[in-house]
Amino acid sequence: MANLDSIFHGLADPTRRAVIARLAAGPAAVSELAAPHDMALPSFLKHLKVLEAGGWIRSDKAGRIRTCRLQPDAARAAEFWLGQQRSHWEARLDRLDTFLAQMTDDGGTDGP
Amino acid sequence: MANLDSIFHGLADPTRRAVIARLAAGPAAVSELAAPHDMALPSFLKHLKVLEAGGWIRSDKAGRIRTCRLQPDAARAAEFWLGQQRSHWEARLDRLDTFLAQMTDDGGTDGP
Repeated sequence: MANLDSIFHGLADPTRRAVIARLAAGPAAVSELAAPHDMALPSFLKHLKVLEAGGWIRSDKAGRIRTCRLQPDAARAAEFWLGQQRSHWEARLDRLDTFLAQMTDDGGTDGP
Repeated sequence: MANLDSIFHGLADPTRRAVIARLAAGPAAVSELAAPHDMALPSFLKHLKVLEAGGWIRSDKAGRIRTCRLQPDAARAAEFWLGQQRSHWEARLDRLDTFLAQMTDDGGTDGP
């Protein structure tokens, strides 16, 4: 399992995010993945290596064709971490809401 | 609005993720944020700068105390992007399931 450093580092580049978005639609050969990107193949392959190190993709070679597949665990780990922070954040806002509502109730002068 | 490159770059480091996790529980002074991290203050401040550039935090100075707050938009953008990829990925798996179910139906020999 890749660590969160390399998982998030995988996402910090537009070429790598485009590769992930393309592979979410299904596996693709390296040549097909590289085609839309205006860069030399070695540079593109470096991005694929970063994605592999981050656990985002896996690749298999059949004959002379290397095919890449998205690995869902990286996305799950990234979403899980973000979801944890959001739940802490939202719990805090809920407590703040409750606190403010209590302040309003306590301070209300228009009650019966 | 910070771009996705800098949003995800903000997450690609354990110190920065720890700062985000701490701030999800509420605002904190820079000195309090820095305390658990075994690094020189200038190095820690660089991490805060990366988080500010990624739109993760905002800071305000009152007297000699600089207080940092989490900005929820960065997390929302990150979760939105990941959610989009997941929905594409899941839609593809659903189509694959349907396809496989049809293959099984078509090829079934034990039906009435």
